[in-house]
Order: sequence, then structure tokens, then C-alpha cells
Amino acid sequence: MPGNSFGKLFKITTWGESHGKGIGVVIDGCPPRIPIDENIIQSMLNRRKPGSSSASTKRMEPDKAVIMSGVFNGMTTGTPLMIMVENKDADPGAYEPYADIYRPGHGDITYMAKYKIRDWRGGGRASARETVARVAAGAVAKALLDRERTHVVSYTIELGGIKAVKRDLNQIEKNMFLCPDSKAAEKMNERIIDVKKKGDSVGGIVEIVAKGVPKGLGEPVFDKIDADLAKALMSIGAVKGVEIGTGFKAAAMLGSENNDPINSTGFDTNNAGGILAGITNGVDIIIRVAVKPIPSIRIEQKTVDQSGNQKTVSIKGRHDISAIPRINVVCEAMVNLVLADHLLRQKAIS
Amino acid sequence: MPGNSFGKLFKITTWGESHGKGIGVVIDGCPPRIPIDENIIQSMLNRRKPGSSSASTKRMEPDKAVIMSGVFNGMTTGTPLMIMVENKDADPGAYEPYADIYRPGHGDITYMAKYKIRDWRGGGRASARETVARVAAGAVAKALLDRERTHVVSYTIELGGIKAVKRDLNQIEKNMFLCPDSKAAEKMNERIIDVKKKGDSVGGIVEIVAKGVPKGLGEPVFDKIDADLAKALMSIGAVKGVEIGTGFKAAAMLGSENNDPINSTGFDTNNAGGILAGITNGVDIIIRVAVKPIPSIRIEQKTVDQSGNQKTVSIKGRHDISAIPRINVVCEAMVNLVLADHLLRQKAIS
Amino acid sequence: MPGNSFGKLFKITTWGESHGKGIGVVIDGCPPRIPIDENIIQSMLNRRKPGSSSASTKRMEPDKAVIMSGVFNGMTTGTPLMIMVENKDADPGAYEPYADIYRPGHGDITYMAKYKIRDWRGGGRASARETVARVAAGAVAKALLDRERTHVVSYTIELGGIKAVKRDLNQIEKNMFLCPDSKAAEKMNERIIDVKKKGDSVGGIVEIVAKGVPKGLGEPVFDKIDADLAKALMSIGAVKGVEIGTGFKAAAMLGSENNDPINSTGFDTNNAGGILAGITNGVDIIIRVAVKPIPSIRIEQKTVDQSGNQKTVSIKGRHDISAIPRINVVCEAMVNLVLADHLLRQKAIS
Amino acid sequence: MPGNSFGKLFKITTWGESHGKGIGVVIDGCPPRIPIDENIIQSMLNRRKPGSSSASTKRMEPDKAVIMSGVFNGMTTGTPLMIMVENKDADPGAYEPYADIYRPGHGDITYMAKYKIRDWRGGGRASARETVARVAAGAVAKALLDRERTHVVSYTIELGGIKAVKRDLNQIEKNMFLCPDSKAAEKMNERIIDVKKKGDSVGGIVEIVAKGVPKGLGEPVFDKIDADLAKALMSIGAVKGVEIGTGFKAAAMLGSENNDPINSTGFDTNNAGGILAGITNGVDIIIRVAVKPIPSIRIEQKTVDQSGNQKTVSIKGRHDISAIPRINVVCEAMVNLVLADHLLRQKAIS
Repeated sequence: MPGNSFGKLFKITTWGESHGKGIGVVIDGCPPRIPIDENIIQSMLNRRKPGSSSASTKRMEPDKAVIMSGVFNGMTTGTPLMIMVENKDADPGAYEPYADIYRPGHGDITYMAKYKIRDWRGGGRASARETVARVAAGAVAKALLDRERTHVVSYTIELGGIKAVKRDLNQIEKNMFLCPDSKAAEKMNERIIDVKKKGDSVGGIVEIVAKGVPKGLGEPVFDKIDADLAKALMSIGAVKGVEIGTGFKAAAMLGSENNDPINSTGFDTNNAGGILAGITNGVDIIIRVAVKPIPSIRIEQKTVDQSGNQKTVSIKGRHDISAIPRINVVCEAMVNLVLADHLLRQKAIS
Repeated sequence: MPGNSFGKLFKITTWGESHGKGIGVVIDGCPPRIPIDENIIQSMLNRRKPGSSSASTKRMEPDKAVIMSGVFNGMTTGTPLMIMVENKDADPGAYEPYADIYRPGHGDITYMAKYKIRDWRGGGRASARETVARVAAGAVAKALLDRERTHVVSYTIELGGIKAVKRDLNQIEKNMFLCPDSKAAEKMNERIIDVKKKGDSVGGIVEIVAKGVPKGLGEPVFDKIDADLAKALMSIGAVKGVEIGTGFKAAAMLGSENNDPINSTGFDTNNAGGILAGITNGVDIIIRVAVKPIPSIRIEQKTVDQSGNQKTVSIKGRHDISAIPRINVVCEAMVNLVLADHLLRQKAIS
Repeated sequence: MPGNSFGKLFKITTWGESHGKGIGVVIDGCPPRIPIDENIIQSMLNRRKPGSSSASTKRMEPDKAVIMSGVFNGMTTGTPLMIMVENKDADPGAYEPYADIYRPGHGDITYMAKYKIRDWRGGGRASARETVARVAAGAVAKALLDRERTHVVSYTIELGGIKAVKRDLNQIEKNMFLCPDSKAAEKMNERIIDVKKKGDSVGGIVEIVAKGVPKGLGEPVFDKIDADLAKALMSIGAVKGVEIGTGFKAAAMLGSENNDPINSTGFDTNNAGGILAGITNGVDIIIRVAVKPIPSIRIEQKTVDQSGNQKTVSIKGRHDISAIPRINVVCEAMVNLVLADHLLRQKAIS
Repeated sequence: MPGNSFGKLFKITTWGESHGKGIGVVIDGCPPRIPIDENIIQSMLNRRKPGSSSASTKRMEPDKAVIMSGVFNGMTTGTPLMIMVENKDADPGAYEPYADIYRPGHGDITYMAKYKIRDWRGGGRASARETVARVAAGAVAKALLDRERTHVVSYTIELGGIKAVKRDLNQIEKNMFLCPDSKAAEKMNERIIDVKKKGDSVGGIVEIVAKGVPKGLGEPVFDKIDADLAKALMSIGAVKGVEIGTGFKAAAMLGSENNDPINSTGFDTNNAGGILAGITNGVDIIIRVAVKPIPSIRIEQKTVDQSGNQKTVSIKGRHDISAIPRINVVCEAMVNLVLADHLLRQKAIS
């Protein structure tokens, strides 16, 4: 049944396969008179482009965003925006060796179990290329949030086992891993080069911070904003964990340590990560997501073909060594989408 | 706007405040001819009752479940079930000291920011008592899953900083913390007694395993089953983190380590936690959630009143020292609800 | 699957069977700080009570509304309202003769086809008694609309073939059929008495007018306000047709007759019935619904039992001769629910 | 907020403006392995094309359907289908005279009231061209229903005041008005020619019949299948009334006349129009919709400009004289969409 929509009021529906004709999104519910154009969307897509780091594939994706509807004279009209990117550099032939085989760590085997048919070209709908639509939609959500001076930033705090020690946000754009610690970034690069040689891949952790979020966003008891953020981020292919504020560390803390003392202008600390009882409290929302290593590796792996015969497979083709840092912009997009949605939800009852 | 419903096909809507007239749930979409009665629901509610461990309050909640509709001659009829528990032991007077004050770590301040009005009696809708409705609904979901031989179990793997080393599921029901390691359980008890004396509270980690889950459940790309599980669990009041399979540890693993080799009957390992590309692969689903320490503590804390004046507060009354182990049955309920929902979703397209 | 919810932002979910323990509704999404109490709801339920006209059954339904949640100190809190009416005068024994037989014109046969089980007591969920929940929810919607000075009224323009000629709204509350034409009302009464003697039943037409509706409500292209009104009204058991403005008469009109000329303060005429392209235009919304005759009649009818054997049936028990005028308040409630929902939807984008 | 989606399990989301870059639809929830290709969709779009009758505009709309996603090797894959038609023959310049003026009977004035901005090119989103997306989606729904041998047909029973007397369905494709009465069709043509000369327009009534519908479809109490049909059809621009079975005539019937006697194989009559208590009963679903006259007429009309100044307007350009017969295929599409949706909904609980 339908599973390709996200959001209740700022609602997106995405479509498209990795090596089909294109990828796109319908945004239904965007308020009218938000300034938007293809350049704004393109600049976000460019941040997600391959080749931006040593961890990324060299696949050339021109990823040219086209706004097909919903914008008139540079402004949204209140009707659905459809934003589309045609697949130009698709090379389905490269995937023919895997047409009959299940790649470990991939959705090949589960898509087949679910649908009894699968578009094996580049992973079809399960490809990371699907996130192009999320980023395009996130760019529109961001334009809406700009009016509220709400701003989301993401950065890499761990990659291939290398942890960032510093949190110098000025460093983020200065290294290819979007890491707030320049020394860690160097080590990450060494690590990536090493792993690449071995034909393996790595995972990491991305931290996302939302600043300037209005108080009062989030809808108890199931659509708490942390619940919606968890879903939004866990729905990204490579994500295996999500935590808010102190997250898993809270498990070992005392109540007296973890509670944030309240003062007349806010809170003395931010262990809650900006959310209390599922509603924003006006301070920064802090989220971390665990990103698994890219499953496509050159190292030979054990698997079966569609008839169940034991096989081995070594994935050649163009592949990232890590979903980071390309996934970072996808995380930002998803957080922007959740915030835009909850902003409108709160307006409805205010 | 509405935020009190969960699920698309097996859909629940909950209502009720901690110290209002009652707590309940409407289940809309339950298939007909599922055997259910009040005893089945009651036995689940009893598992969530206070006083089951040294970590729990002594509030006596009779929590008598009544099925108001949707069941005829011991079977569901396909029409909505409304299951209700009246609030019998409510003592709103005990909360009057906090009527004008924001308790740190609680939703008092954010509910006020959101709605400009709040039912301060026992935390109102933000009380953990809200989970009574989740557990009642989960019992019906469980009855549906029983037909598929799908079974969900949860247990405590960390409490107050004490970690379980063993995973002996036979031990779970033998100690008050639902811990699969009897020695760790003893240490947990010591820890709880110590913390209780100091008027503080602790958090922990719950692991949930779903066995016998059919292949093919989950709806890419946003309603992936891991995404829905993350939302389901993060929507529980005290939860600050959710991870699937290797979770945050995957961040430091290599692709060659984390990928599960495929064989003709399944997988050699289960790092994926039973889910690939958001769809179940037929092996156990493994989830861990981080539970923060109970925010209500006797230790004096800094806060403000509703006019913004600096105050201190010490929470007396009846309070758990830890949400664990009562939260465990809530986690099970939420996982049962997600699985029941996705089971029906998959039937629709099969 | 779920079908017992209505509305997107002002969202209701109803539950309950005619002769089960009760009937009720959860309202999720009602804005906070709307003044509401049980008396307001009760007064609406009283308008729907049996025995108010010669066309109604004498079943005594005390129909005592209880607000179980969501209201604190006489105001909504933003959390779900659950409003419940216990079934006090239920007499399931009266329905035992029909436990094995399909009553013509009723849902007995289709519920059985759908669910393979049915609660035959008084029609179960398919009973008109289900509308108690709609009227209770409509009372809350009305309280919200009162703030906007939006007001909905309904009246009977045809009953048993007798048509109202006048539209004197002052007459509505002065006769038992809520007819705006006192002479027609007298004839309707004669007609009802005659039909009652024969053990038969009649239908009619209800007109509903919404005054003071803000401009701009309605969400193209599928959630046009006329589309949502049509669904809302057609979902009432006895309704077989819905029309807006000139309705079916528009089919025989010329464009030059049917178009409403526009002037600087509004429109010269209101053939559109207050809606253009699915959006309100600021003038009265005008709707008519066709109500079929009550299917329960004393006259003997041909039918089959659950095993398919040919039978005859004569429905004795307590039955209305016409759904009018009790259905009128249900129609009002449904229109109030649609308007409240669209009011909030419009706020979200404004 | 979002209003451009229809259906719960077979869910469509449409986008596009009359004179923007294109019109399209995302279908989310279509089961896998349904055979579909662009020709099937194209053949439906061709039936909706202008110029098929004397009542239609001569605008040449090549309306070339392209399937952008969700189909692999001629079969649906379970992922979203996006079907798109680029706008080739758009001539926005023709609408410049109306950029500042509100056309009577059109949504110009209400779109402006709602959004404070409007795409005036050809009516923008409010154009009948929007229905291209409905027809494309309906073609996919039809492919799904073909497996169940469910078949929907529509025909014209009134046009410009001329009523069809016969119901000879063999005649439908033999005259340009899809009228089941060839003599009436001739009179309709005379009427159209006459009205066209005068620069005016006409309305009519379309009857839609669904044959071979399985029993048990429809979800009480709000998503009754007649309620969803009413919404589906009333959401089409020109529709002002919807009735099921005897419809408005039922208002003047006795219960003993209107009830359909039940026999061992079905019903003696079909006054119910195939639906009892919102659930299909296995016989033909019969629906009629009232279609208002096209609001664009050459005859001079009174209106205002966007500043509120009194003006007159005469609509030149290319316009149909009647929405019939082009609207007929749109009605069929909407009914197919409702049936496909409810078919999947019923599968989920079966």
C-alpha cells in the first residue's frame, strides 16, 4: 500500500527509480507566496552530488531540477509543486550482472519477497538516488522555514571509526567530510583511502542541529516531533539508529543529571535536545544518526541467486565508500521537512 | 492538529488524561473474527502495573479494561473496538503544588507553550499513564499476530548503568527487571535501592525482539518498517534513542563486517536486525531503545513558575525510580501495533 | 480497514453499536481554549431525540452525554475529547427474530458479506443510533464555528411527497417536521399518520444552509469543500443524493442563467450555492439531501434467511416512519464538521 | 493544506496547471504485476480528447502520456507510477485579457480569496485540463479491476434539457454524446448547435453504472462506498449533484416501494443502486451526476476586476459548449479509482 508520502500538512510524495526515466516529488500543502525557483533547488541538489569527497562515486549526475507546476512568477501558488530530475547518466547495463543475484546488505532480496518482481537496474526504487527527491523537497521546506529564521545544519562526527573531538561549525564547509574537526577530517580521509584500496566501505555518525525552532511544535502523543524526526531519519536507506539530545547516553545518567534546570529565559543545559514531551522547547534540536557502511563492496561476498543457488559476488561499478557526507544533506532535508510540517500543524490550532 | 492516532490499517486513536475520568483507545481496522475478550487485555495491562518492581510507584491502579464496542460473542466484528480504563485511584490534589510550576524534564512547560492551557493534574495527557491505552491496543494487535505465529518479547539490557552480559531469555520473567542476566538483575536492584534513597532516578536500555515475522513487511520509501518502528518507539515518553540491528555500532564497522552473507535458507548473521531496505527479511527483528531517567525526583531542582519567577521544586508523591521495567510492555505493544499494521498493509497488495 | 474517522484537522473517530455498551466519539485536533461542556452537547443530542414528531419511534433514549477527556475547567485543552453516551434503553431481545434474517433495505446482508460476522442486535453498527456520535462531535464543531459567526441551519422541504412551498425559516421550530412552510407541515402530518396506519414509511428532502462562512475554505482538487460535504452527507445512512446550489436543476440551465453575475460586494444570485471551484465564495452554502424511506416497515416483505431460504418478514418493534426530522440535526452536525475542518485547514496555510 | 490526493490504498496525487509545463499523477499503492503500458493509458486519454463532439473545443491537445516510473517490463512493480502529459498546445497569451478579471462561474475569484495569488493562465489548476491526470490514473485502476471482471460504463441521459428516453447501451458509442438513445442524441446535437450560435452553454446528466462489483466493498461508517463515490464525483469541476440508485426520487417513495425484496440469488429490484449501508451488495452500482453548464460563454456577463471595479466580460477563446461528453470518461475514471481503492481495502481485512 502507499508508503511514498511523508508529512501531514507539508506533504511530499516521491517517485522514481535509479535507472528509470527520472526521480521526482510532488509537494502538496506548501503555503502560497513562498519565493522559490529552480536555482534554489539546484543548489541543494549540488550539495548532494557525487564526487564531492574521496568517499563518493564518480558517477556524473547532472541532476538538473525542473519545477513542473505550482510556481508562478517565482512564487508558490498553493497548488502542488512537482519537481523532477531526469536520469541522464543512468547505465542500467552495468547492473546486468546483478539482475539474477541478491547483493548482501541490499534490498534486492526483500523487494523480491515483497513484490515478486523487482526493477534490478541500479537497485531500482531502493537506490540512494531516491534521496534526490527528498533533497529537492527539503529545499522548498527550507524556503518556508527561512521566514521563521529556523535553520538546520548537519555535520559528520564519526567516519570509519574516526571521531570528531571538536565541534567547530566553521570547519564544516572547509573539509570534504563536513566534519567540525579539521584534524579528524584528515584522519577520516586517510581511513577512506585505505578502505577504498581494500574494496571495503565504512559507516559513521551524522549530527543534525536545528536552530531557531519556534516553541510548541509537535503533536502528542504519537506525532511527537521526536517521533516524526526518528521516522524521517530512519526512513533514509543507510540509517540504523537515531537519538535525540543525550540519546543512548541518557540510559546511564541520573535524573538529577539529565533533567535540564529551567530558568526565566530557557534552560541551563540542553540534554533534552530541544524537545520535552514531544514538543519543542525553543532551544536547539540535537539529533544523531548512525549510518551503516555502504553495502556495495568489491570484496567478494557470499550470496544466492534468485533460484536459491549459492554464489559469490563482488560489486564493481561506481560506488561510494561511505554514504557520508552525501547523506548529510539528505538528513538536513528530512529535518527541514518535519519542521515545516509541524510549523503548519501548529498554525492550524493557533 | 490530530496526533493521537497511530497506524494506517490497524489504526488506533487514544484519549484520556492521567487524572481525568479515564484512558482509552479506539481500534479501527481490526479484521473481523479475531478472538478477543477483556481478560486477554487485562492480562497485558497487569504486566504494566505499578509495584511490579522496586523501581515502581505504589500507586494502586486497578486498571480494569472494559471493551465498549466492536466485539460480539467473543470475536471482533470488523467495527471499531473501544477499550476503556476508568481512572479510579486518581488523586489530583497531590499535584496541586505543581499547578503553577514547571517540573524540569517534564512536558509542563511545552504543553503550556503549545496550547496556552494545560491540565496540570498528574501531567494530564503527558503522563506515562497514557500508555495504558497503547498496551490495551497492543493486546489486540498481539491477538492478530498470534495467527501468524509472530511473537514479540522485550527485556532490560541496561539499568542505572548496569549492563546485562548474558542474554538468557528464560531469566526474563524470573526477576523484577525483566533482565536476561540474573546477576545483572541483582546489581540493578542494589542500584535502584541506592538511587531511591538519594531521591534520584535512573534510565536504561530495553531490547525488543520480534520472532516469526513474515518476509516482505514494510512500505518503502517513507513507511519502511524500521522507520515506523522508530516512530512508534520514540513516541513513548521516556525514549530518547532507537536503533535497529547493529545500530550505532554499525557506524564503526566495515561493509564486509556488517553485511549479512546470504545462504539458501536465510542469512549467516543478523547485523541488519531483520530489515533490509525497510522490508522484513524473515529473520528476527532486533531493536534497542534508550530510556531516560524518570524526570520526577525528590532532589531539589531549579525551575520557574508560570509567571517566570525562579523557584525550586522537589517532587514528592508516588513516582517510579525508572520507567523500566514498566515501559518494556509498552515497547512490546508498540512493536505489535507496527507489525499488525504492516501485516494488513502487505495483505492489501498480495 | 479503518473507515470510522472523518476530517483531516478537526478529526473525529466514532465507535459503538446500537445495542452494545455505548456510542461515542474521539475528537482529535480541536483547538485549545474552546468553551465546551456536557450541557452544550446534551442540548444537541436532545434535538435528535426520538419522539419529537409523529414520525419518530417512542424508544426512550436518555442519551446522556459524558465528556471523558480533553476538557479542563470548561475549556478544551488541545488533547482529544472523548464523548460517550451509554446505551441505557437497549433491548436486544426485540431483535432476536431478525438474528437469522436479512431485513430488506438494511445492511444486514452486506455486513455479513463483508465481515462474515455481524452484531444483529438492533442493526449493530449500521443502526441510525450511530449518528449520536456525529451529533455530539458536531456540537463541538459548532462551538468552534461560533467564534467565526458561522451558523448552519437545516429544514425539511419535502416529506412523503409533500413539498414545502414557502421558505419561512421562522416556522422551522414551530412544527414537528422542521418545515419552513406551516401549511405543508400540516399536510406532512396527515401523510405520516396515514402511512403509519398502513405500516409503511416515507422519505423526503432536507435543505441545509450555512451562513457566515468565510471565503477561501476548500482544498482543490479532491478535497473541494463541496466534495467533502457530499461525502459527509452521503455517509449518513438514509441519504441517497446530495446537491449543491441549483444542483440537478443546473443540468437543464444555460450558462448565462446559471452563472452568478459578480458585483463589488459579492454576487447578484447564488446558483453556485456558495462554492466556486470547490472553494467558498463568502455567500450562503446551500445543500439538499435526498432521504430514502425508513426500510423497517410493518408491511410484509420478501427476503431470505442466512442460509438462503426464502422467507417473509414484517418488522414490528419501535421504528420511525421517516428519518426526517431526526436526520436534520445529523445533517447539520456533518456540515458543521466539514466547515470546522476546512476552517483549520485554511488557517494552516494563511 | 494538501488536497490533491485521492484514495487510501490505491492512492493518487495529481499536479499541474492548464498552461504550465504539464499535468500528471503519482499512483502510490498500485499492487505489483499489473500489466500496464502507455498505450493503455493513451487510449483512455484519447476518449477524453477535445473535438470528439460538436460540444467540444477544437484545442488540439496531443496529450501524450509518458510513464516515468513504477513499471518494469510491462508490469507494475509495486513502486509509485508517475504518469505525465506535457502541455504542448498551451496558449497562455489567449488568457491575458482575463488576467485581471474574475470570470463568472469560475474559480478565479475564490482561488484569489484563498491563496492571494493565482495562475490565471487558462484557469491554472482550476482548469478542466486537470482531469487529464484523473483519467490517466483511472486507466491504471481499470487495469486492476479488469482482473476482477469489474467494468464501469457511463453515458449521457440528459443534455441541454433533452432527456434520453431509452437506455440502449449499444447506442452509446454510436453518437457523439455517448447517449443511449439515438433519437435523443439527434435532438441534443440540434440543441448544441443552437446554443453555440447564441454564445451560450448547456449542462446535463451523466449516468454511471459499475457492473461485476464484488460484494462487501465499502467501509462504514464514513468511508461508505456511496460516500466515497459522492466525494469522487463531486470533486469534478462541473458536478453539482450526485445520486445513487433511486436517488432524489426515493424522497417521494414509500418504504414498501423503495426496499428491494431479497431472493436467494440477489434482489428483485435495484432501487438501492447496488449499495446497502455503504457496502456493495453484488448488483450494479448506479450513479447519476448533475453537470452544470460550462461557465465560459461568449455572451457578455457582469463581473468585477481584481480591484473590485465593475466590468463586463465575454469569453472568447476555445471553449466547450458542454462538459458532456468529455466529462463522462472522467466520471468513469473516478468510479474506477474508488472501486480499486475499496477492493484493496477489503483485501486487507479478508
